[in-house]
Amino acid sequence: MLTSVYIIAITAEAMSGALAAGRRNMDFFGVAVIAFLTALGGGTVRDILLGNFPITWTQHPLYIYITITGGLATIVLARFMRHLHQLFLVLDAIGLVAFTVIGCNVALRLGYDTVVVVMAGIITGIFGGIIRDIMCNRMPQVLRHELYASVSLVVALLYLALRHQGASESVNLLAAFSVGLLLRMAAIRWKLSLPVFSYAKSQWD
Amino acid sequence: MLTSVYIIAITAEAMSGALAAGRRNMDFFGVAVIAFLTALGGGTVRDILLGNFPITWTQHPLYIYITITGGLATIVLARFMRHLHQLFLVLDAIGLVAFTVIGCNVALRLGYDTVVVVMAGIITGIFGGIIRDIMCNRMPQVLRHELYASVSLVVALLYLALRHQGASESVNLLAAFSVGLLLRMAAIRWKLSLPVFSYAKSQWD
Amino acid sequence: MLTSVYIIAITAEAMSGALAAGRRNMDFFGVAVIAFLTALGGGTVRDILLGNFPITWTQHPLYIYITITGGLATIVLARFMRHLHQLFLVLDAIGLVAFTVIGCNVALRLGYDTVVVVMAGIITGIFGGIIRDIMCNRMPQVLRHELYASVSLVVALLYLALRHQGASESVNLLAAFSVGLLLRMAAIRWKLSLPVFSYAKSQWD
Repeated sequence: MLTSVYIIAITAEAMSGALAAGRRNMDFFGVAVIAFLTALGGGTVRDILLGNFPITWTQHPLYIYITITGGLATIVLARFMRHLHQLFLVLDAIGLVAFTVIGCNVALRLGYDTVVVVMAGIITGIFGGIIRDIMCNRMPQVLRHELYASVSLVVALLYLALRHQGASESVNLLAAFSVGLLLRMAAIRWKLSLPVFSYAKSQWD
Repeated sequence: MLTSVYIIAITAEAMSGALAAGRRNMDFFGVAVIAFLTALGGGTVRDILLGNFPITWTQHPLYIYITITGGLATIVLARFMRHLHQLFLVLDAIGLVAFTVIGCNVALRLGYDTVVVVMAGIITGIFGGIIRDIMCNRMPQVLRHELYASVSLVVALLYLALRHQGASESVNLLAAFSVGLLLRMAAIRWKLSLPVFSYAKSQWD
Repeated sequence: MLTSVYIIAITAEAMSGALAAGRRNMDFFGVAVIAFLTALGGGTVRDILLGNFPITWTQHPLYIYITITGGLATIVLARFMRHLHQLFLVLDAIGLVAFTVIGCNVALRLGYDTVVVVMAGIITGIFGGIIRDIMCNRMPQVLRHELYASVSLVVALLYLALRHQGASESVNLLAAFSVGLLLRMAAIRWKLSLPVFSYAKSQWD
């Protein structure tokens, strides 16, 4: 089940990367690169930080083909994107939850400390978007706007708490996706965001 | 043979990095850092992604000295750079082909899937330039202008196809360099580029 | 001794990261992320490049808690920061020396070549700040302003030279901190900086 959700998730993330590349007028090759990095970059950073070699996508060529195809297909589909905006936000939220849970599981399997497990989940969830934004020379959006990284944190904590309570994996996944999607959708609907820290520029900036 | 070409290639890439650092008014230390990253960053990213430890340059101090010296020498040579522009473009193209072939070979030796081998070639070819541009806070140029990353892709595919056909390594290298250089020179001469994907900024950018 | 200095150092670096995040109006989550990356990013890059897995902070949850707490505390403490400016610069300089020495030691323990040992020291010293600046979408400051990366280079060379001369570790640390702090303080006081390489933008930028 999680695998099919993962396929949907990396496709949605690849498309989000392609749109960002399009906003920067990249060529078709650049679109494919950004799509790949947005979809698989978070898991790559996680694998490197956890020393989890070989890195996941190098053993699953299918994921490479899906993200590149998804990115290039977006060039054609872009004109319909605005109408699919709502659907897109839901798919992106599904991706965020799926990535978080998968990231936690990789770190759990490798026997890392709980705080590292939570970080592995969040890194998998948000670093694809951070790499996308760095490649497009803009501030990482996930650290500023409606709740996003925080949703990943809540999902990771909930998943580990239920697991610790002995909840079955299917119940736990149901809980993670329900809470994660509701929280993210509520954040978008009512523009919920964390407080912002504003520190004025000084002469030693 | 490939080793001497590699030395030329990392020198040329180090100089290109130093010029980019100079455009951002970096100090001499910054010039050395950017020169090193531009020349050896692509291979470093490849080694990390393939789990190829120890990373190549840590076992070849000579490469470190060459790139740093090349970068610092550029500060003196910069005034002649414009006159050497044509030569520089040729050296850069030689570097692109050499990096691509070397990257493919590293992944082949480690037994990775064909698509990962192609990606290892391209990553070695273009990621030094991408890191240079990120460090200089500008959009990665290789994903927008005249054919560059695509040349790396064509070289990687050609190299693997000929290898699969049983071509000898020297014939294969000759083919890779001929096709790669011709394609890159043609791209510069006639401003050939891939189509661009332009997606208008929207309110949810 | 070096461990307590290290704790002070990562706290100071985390606070510097938090202030940079505040200048970019990041939310509280972003502040924590940038604080963590600024404090522990240099060591992370070093561990990855040296193949030193598991990465240090994954085995020391305390470091994670300290940097995140330090980052978030900065939100409250920011109003007093200007008055603590001098203290802050001293703590940052202590961090630079401590990171450099620790980085050299990790590479020495793994048996790397001397030039790689020096680079490991410098990378540990300056890459947290570079990652901070990339995440905040600005040019890496450490490659442009008052002597900073160069202080790290001098400390690394001095540390290795004294070690080679058979100096005891405590004498060596005393020398490293004395010279490093004096050099950095002098650089700030008299605005000492390396010469800058300025290369005019051309049409092929």
